[in-house]
Amino acid sequence: MRKIEIFDSTLRDGAQSENVSFSVEDKCNIARALDQLGVDFIEAGNPFSNPKDAEFFRRAPALGLEHAKLTAFGSTRRRGMTAQEDGNCAALLAAGTQWVTIFGKSSRWQVEHVLETSPQENLEMIEDTVRYLTAAGKLVIFDAEHFFDGYKQDPYYAEQVLQVARRAGAERLVLCDTNGGCFPEEIGEITGRMHRQFPGRIGIHCHDDMGCAVAGAMAAVQAGAVQVQGTCTGFGERCGNTNLATVIANLQLKRDCSCIPEDRLPQLTRTARYISEVSNMQLAHAMPYVGKSAFAHKGGMHVDGVKKNTAAFEHISPERVGNQRQILLSEVSGRTALLAKVHEVVPDLSKNSPELGMLVERLKELEFQGYQFEAATSSFELVVLRELGRFTPFFHLELFRIIGEQDCADRHMSSAMVKLRVGDRYEITADEGDGPVHALDRALRKGLEVFYPSLAGVRLIDYKVRVMDTKATAALVRVLIESSDGENVWTTVGVSTDIINASMHALSDSMEYKLYRDLVLQRQS
Amino acid sequence: MRKIEIFDSTLRDGAQSENVSFSVEDKCNIARALDQLGVDFIEAGNPFSNPKDAEFFRRAPALGLEHAKLTAFGSTRRRGMTAQEDGNCAALLAAGTQWVTIFGKSSRWQVEHVLETSPQENLEMIEDTVRYLTAAGKLVIFDAEHFFDGYKQDPYYAEQVLQVARRAGAERLVLCDTNGGCFPEEIGEITGRMHRQFPGRIGIHCHDDMGCAVAGAMAAVQAGAVQVQGTCTGFGERCGNTNLATVIANLQLKRDCSCIPEDRLPQLTRTARYISEVSNMQLAHAMPYVGKSAFAHKGGMHVDGVKKNTAAFEHISPERVGNQRQILLSEVSGRTALLAKVHEVVPDLSKNSPELGMLVERLKELEFQGYQFEAATSSFELVVLRELGRFTPFFHLELFRIIGEQDCADRHMSSAMVKLRVGDRYEITADEGDGPVHALDRALRKGLEVFYPSLAGVRLIDYKVRVMDTKATAALVRVLIESSDGENVWTTVGVSTDIINASMHALSDSMEYKLYRDLVLQRQS
Repeated sequence: MRKIEIFDSTLRDGAQSENVSFSVEDKCNIARALDQLGVDFIEAGNPFSNPKDAEFFRRAPALGLEHAKLTAFGSTRRRGMTAQEDGNCAALLAAGTQWVTIFGKSSRWQVEHVLETSPQENLEMIEDTVRYLTAAGKLVIFDAEHFFDGYKQDPYYAEQVLQVARRAGAERLVLCDTNGGCFPEEIGEITGRMHRQFPGRIGIHCHDDMGCAVAGAMAAVQAGAVQVQGTCTGFGERCGNTNLATVIANLQLKRDCSCIPEDRLPQLTRTARYISEVSNMQLAHAMPYVGKSAFAHKGGMHVDGVKKNTAAFEHISPERVGNQRQILLSEVSGRTALLAKVHEVVPDLSKNSPELGMLVERLKELEFQGYQFEAATSSFELVVLRELGRFTPFFHLELFRIIGEQDCADRHMSSAMVKLRVGDRYEITADEGDGPVHALDRALRKGLEVFYPSLAGVRLIDYKVRVMDTKATAALVRVLIESSDGENVWTTVGVSTDIINASMHALSDSMEYKLYRDLVLQRQS
Repeated sequence: MRKIEIFDSTLRDGAQSENVSFSVEDKCNIARALDQLGVDFIEAGNPFSNPKDAEFFRRAPALGLEHAKLTAFGSTRRRGMTAQEDGNCAALLAAGTQWVTIFGKSSRWQVEHVLETSPQENLEMIEDTVRYLTAAGKLVIFDAEHFFDGYKQDPYYAEQVLQVARRAGAERLVLCDTNGGCFPEEIGEITGRMHRQFPGRIGIHCHDDMGCAVAGAMAAVQAGAVQVQGTCTGFGERCGNTNLATVIANLQLKRDCSCIPEDRLPQLTRTARYISEVSNMQLAHAMPYVGKSAFAHKGGMHVDGVKKNTAAFEHISPERVGNQRQILLSEVSGRTALLAKVHEVVPDLSKNSPELGMLVERLKELEFQGYQFEAATSSFELVVLRELGRFTPFFHLELFRIIGEQDCADRHMSSAMVKLRVGDRYEITADEGDGPVHALDRALRKGLEVFYPSLAGVRLIDYKVRVMDTKATAALVRVLIESSDGENVWTTVGVSTDIINASMHALSDSMEYKLYRDLVLQRQS
């Protein structure tokens, strides 16, 4: 079985997508998820041009990645200075990663017209930079920008660029179809030639501007490439990068290659959905293998066919990539996946217990309503415990009201009133805040702290809102709230057509979860 | 220049997408749009299994299609009856189209295990049906279902299916990768063999389950196929069909083929967006050629490159397919990009004008405050015009108030009151909605329509919320609102610590932008 390295650039090239902007915390979360999936390389950012990326690299050692190698990304030295003098090269060293990725131009036309330097100087810039980094003990991946366009115009020069990088010690030579304008058969042919010159060294980096990035990467692998660069969800500048979730499944299930550890393949769907959630991007329902509709059958014909024999209308079985079959006309899906998740919360529940069937029905109903528990594991835990009658609520929300006002000078204020009950005692509180959710949070906690002083230490650390379909303001809204008590972090979810209602569900789940965990810990000690 | 027939199945296979459901009116609108784009065939539905489709065919002659040939879709006759006796065949004739598409199985395994009949009877079902339809004067397109899987298992039988259909008079033999599990190189090879047997007759129908549908169709064309089936936007069951917008542009701009009349190519973007609008589906921003981000440039490096020479980072010029270049403003893009963007709005502003410096300062300040204009180009335009004193507001928001309430039974309601002024006339209105933003939108428009009736046609089509740092509910919130008047789509932004305040800014910018554009158009005509 051939090993193919998977190089994920969600944190660098993926961050170039329109509407994507990662916080350092987002970057840490995504790096951990990719590591758990078992990718080989995580390109985490450009420490020279982006201070947030530099901050990420400072925090990276504490992430405790087990499998993936982090790589910092930067350009070759600028012309007219040595690599030592170039702040970019210094930043790459300072990032402290063992692997470093640098990009340099391999198209003579680009060198002369965009970089505006001589072909010779460009070669020297590449050679100097690679030498400088390898001399400092780094392992270097060289991204040959515009390689295919360059090769088609001047194959001799493009090849020379690779020779120079290799001679200076680059471990990998990555052929980039930077503009996404090269067809798979051309990619396959040119990659084959480069593979014969540099066996075991060639990587491929495609873009999807002609809808052929995956096919291009597949063709390159068939021609000898050992590394595929892309992003797990296909996010990236313009039309996006090679979708690695698709490539991993294609190679591993159909081309007898090994990309990630075999037992991680069922995590593919969950990982892709998690990354898109953190990116605040909608994962296309139709995305191969991992999309919500990837194994959805609608036509009566197909549904019958699938029922008769699942192989009839599916190219693979969805469980292999952690996805589920959906029969859209009759709701008969998803049970196995849910069972596994429930088992994590209540390991003592027997597989044949009648409660289990009811629980699964309830969870499917909630998912149908728009709940998504992939990220909100704490809400999931609460739903399971509640449905099984194993949860005693710590409080009851009797009523709340929010008022928002704004005048012609754009002065605005939000206030909230909350009435809650604990046992037979009532508390009515009110507070104001920077917005309605902030006001609600403060009023709710003010009331709850009367009964549960430990809630004073709880902070909301993230608040995410996702509108779930395109009926705009009347559409369903899903709110994810991340809370912390300084020690633990937990995530809860609320869904409603009303953003305030959804937020309050997630807020109150957060408080309940904290109180519940405290109680469990207290009982254990 | 090779002519390749484009066969669009949005109305049939596209209607199999999860969440898509067309009314007869929708179908008429999409058929008209496809006809104007200049596709060759429009597969409009199955008149036997779907009464709505039968209704569409009754109304079809009145559509006055100029270019496209409509085709009705159905199966071969069922076993144990003659074609004459089969209601499906009768419905195909009754549809009244000159062209008819029928599908039959070409995989021996599928025949035996799903259809549950003998290979010989299957051949007879195909032959009878094609003969019956051609005898009635129809031109028949035969879709060979599961062709590639079937061919790989039993090439002799798969080929026999085509021979039988051809002998009975089928004009086109379409090789279907029904499950989407066949790689482009296999598709190319097998299509090549079939092309040599049936020159000028072969079509290709792919699905995107491995992310290779476009590449598969391209490979088939290269191997001799004369017809590509798919859907204009790629919508379709599971992972979707071959994206025809991508294939048309690929073939016509890069493979010297003719798919649609040359002068229609700039309608490609508009048509794809219109179809997704009617389908109530979000067209992926990253969609090749026609997506909103397809020519969007973000990284500082690339922005410089694109400005130096547009060919540097674009594989084609966006105008050729009716799309636009976007220079995205981001934390790494800086002053140059900002200037270029301002220049698009006010081409007459001189580079040395003192106003320009102030404007750039103001824009940078807004970005620092959390505004992001990369997606919200309409708000950007308004900011520029306002700063330069070139904008007269159409209305003034004097006051608004929202109230949200929820009781212990989780019943919730949102209402809004808005006071606005136009000139010296005041309007106070109120409304309720599914959430506070929905209530605000309705109340605001109720008031504005008194002065500007054209706003009645504006709909919010997307609403996105992003919390910008991790201080949670007290953090800054950025709201993006996408609006449409059925013809144009524009995006506006609002930023505030208060989500209601931010939403109101974006909402009111959206209304102002619509009124402003209408005024500009009116002046031009």
